[in-house]
Amino acid sequence: MSGSVKDKVAVIGVGCTKFGDNFDMGYEDMAVEAAFAAFHDAGVVPDEIEAAWLGTYSPSLGHGKAAASLADALRLYNRPITRVENFCATGTDAFRNGVLAVASGLYDIVLVVGVEKYKDRPGRGIQREGVHPYYNDGATAPGLFALAANRYMHTFGLTRRTLAKVSVKNHHNGALNPKAHLQREVTEEQVLSAPIIAWPFGLYDCCPTTDGSAAAVICRADLAKRFRDDYILVKGVGLAVTTGRPFMDPTFDYLGFRSTQQASGQAYEMAGIKNPVTEIDVAEVHDCFTWTEISNYEDLGFIAKGQGAGLIEEGRTALDGDIPVNPSGGLKSFGHPIGASGVRMVYEIVTQLRGQGGPRQVKDPKIGLVHNVGGPGAVSCVVVLAQP
Amino acid sequence: MSGSVKDKVAVIGVGCTKFGDNFDMGYEDMAVEAAFAAFHDAGVVPDEIEAAWLGTYSPSLGHGKAAASLADALRLYNRPITRVENFCATGTDAFRNGVLAVASGLYDIVLVVGVEKYKDRPGRGIQREGVHPYYNDGATAPGLFALAANRYMHTFGLTRRTLAKVSVKNHHNGALNPKAHLQREVTEEQVLSAPIIAWPFGLYDCCPTTDGSAAAVICRADLAKRFRDDYILVKGVGLAVTTGRPFMDPTFDYLGFRSTQQASGQAYEMAGIKNPVTEIDVAEVHDCFTWTEISNYEDLGFIAKGQGAGLIEEGRTALDGDIPVNPSGGLKSFGHPIGASGVRMVYEIVTQLRGQGGPRQVKDPKIGLVHNVGGPGAVSCVVVLAQP
Repeated sequence: MSGSVKDKVAVIGVGCTKFGDNFDMGYEDMAVEAAFAAFHDAGVVPDEIEAAWLGTYSPSLGHGKAAASLADALRLYNRPITRVENFCATGTDAFRNGVLAVASGLYDIVLVVGVEKYKDRPGRGIQREGVHPYYNDGATAPGLFALAANRYMHTFGLTRRTLAKVSVKNHHNGALNPKAHLQREVTEEQVLSAPIIAWPFGLYDCCPTTDGSAAAVICRADLAKRFRDDYILVKGVGLAVTTGRPFMDPTFDYLGFRSTQQASGQAYEMAGIKNPVTEIDVAEVHDCFTWTEISNYEDLGFIAKGQGAGLIEEGRTALDGDIPVNPSGGLKSFGHPIGASGVRMVYEIVTQLRGQGGPRQVKDPKIGLVHNVGGPGAVSCVVVLAQP
Repeated sequence: MSGSVKDKVAVIGVGCTKFGDNFDMGYEDMAVEAAFAAFHDAGVVPDEIEAAWLGTYSPSLGHGKAAASLADALRLYNRPITRVENFCATGTDAFRNGVLAVASGLYDIVLVVGVEKYKDRPGRGIQREGVHPYYNDGATAPGLFALAANRYMHTFGLTRRTLAKVSVKNHHNGALNPKAHLQREVTEEQVLSAPIIAWPFGLYDCCPTTDGSAAAVICRADLAKRFRDDYILVKGVGLAVTTGRPFMDPTFDYLGFRSTQQASGQAYEMAGIKNPVTEIDVAEVHDCFTWTEISNYEDLGFIAKGQGAGLIEEGRTALDGDIPVNPSGGLKSFGHPIGASGVRMVYEIVTQLRGQGGPRQVKDPKIGLVHNVGGPGAVSCVVVLAQP
């Protein structure tokens, strides 16, 4: 990385639909609701949007049509819209590309939208929870992450009871969040006694299949004050792609994901963050499975490899902990419509940094982190946001 | 458009596979050949590549895995790779996003790759030439473009014989190009007597289904001289998305595509081009069908609406004309692997601007244009390149 886009771009508006079984809303409906919420929040009208980036993994009507679908849904015609897709980091990478475009000086104000519709499309549920078409039969997302989780648990003595605490924490946070998919508490015993999906993951160790959309309006940082005083600055972005076949990589130790280590390293270097656990005040971290959150604590540099369990056991990542993680409820409780998730995390961190988190608000955060990992482990994207 | 990225980014290397029925090469094989040709051309080693953009419409192994596939194919690990998809403008928009990223100051040197594998994937041929899954039965790409072509021919008196001249020209150019898919001349009579695909388009009015990959290495313009003296500057980029349902748009007159008018307008404004037909010396223009090239002449501002036939009738777009169009052979003869095409056009224009076009070299070009339209008409991307 040669240069930096630190402090060049600001988030001036965010929007997010209710996540869940949105049977009453189509793909385009959700994108419209999220985008117009972001326009309203930023105090802009659609005509002020000069370009857009759309993060979507499974576009509405088959591949190809995604950018034009967004143009039609928002009547955002005669300007640039780019579709970005990058596994579970799709939304975050759409945000990153929007940030780079504003930093290039070409556009003053752009829109980033993430959207996904999974619940009433035949086969989508199976695809998400079950057999990916590009993996061998039976190598499901839970199954693949479980390979690493088992190795990790064996190596570091992590137990299912500690994994359950991640689920309990994130369900607790989600129960406080009116936009979350699963707004209910769960107990450790419920998590531990749930049907096994792929050992060690029971049903409550896995994120659900969810519909949803989120959006952000970003602009040149030097223009942000025109729109609001409590704008949020982009301090760092990082993206790293490793092998798409981590389980065939002889150097893969099954104990964490290099893509997250690399992407967070890029973002921290840009943001000037030396000690993430003390400098970051709130984080939205990819918890597709309970183990993933614990391993991510380590890959994000919050704590040394093998010691992530301590953060959850000691309550340090709870809402009132010293580094609250997933105050939104996380993928576990908020839901995970793939391309929407990264932008939804930006929504949450911006909301937290503005102090607008309501019952789930963490105490006085100044710097926040957004993180997705996908693949599993093939790609990771990290964004650092902060108050000006 | 608020700012500009004019003269901030340079192309220092390009590469391209043979396009065609590449039954001996897989998706990744082609990406590797194109990328390493571009590395060699630029005089860089893969480790110098700081980030990459991949334009692909139909990724190798289903959606999701595209960026990681490229990382694996090129062993380009632990750095950013973004997949971009935007109908038939996929490759050009990947190039545009790479340009914006370099212009942001974050990266010095990045790679853009476009790749597509259509010829030995069951169903892909049908998808390309026949029924798109998101259109109604029978509303094929040829059928949809034919709706506009028929209206245009009725309105402006364009004949099939004039359409045939586009095919003859582009096949002539492709016959001079060792990388083209269909390296053979055709006569007007052959074009006119070929089986009808969708009136007015016969077989030789339609581009083929093709495998291929192309790549470009781009860098900060102020660093370009370190790599070569004959680098090529990016003078302008433009992208415009209109409706994805142009044929349901009551304001659509079926006589041309607004997206191309808008995208070229953006690129010309940035490049400072006032009179395209005199200022642009060579152009690669989206000729998915013969009519599309003629209509594009007008939408790109080479000539007034309804008068495009004159450019082909008078030979002005031939290799020795005053504004040679598709010296490569165009989509018609070079082939059209969707995500590869835009990057392949960059390859051709860079080759022409360097004077390395061999038997298809046009005379002393200083400024060249790359143009894709997709959708049909839903999206267009334009790039203006020039000698320093």
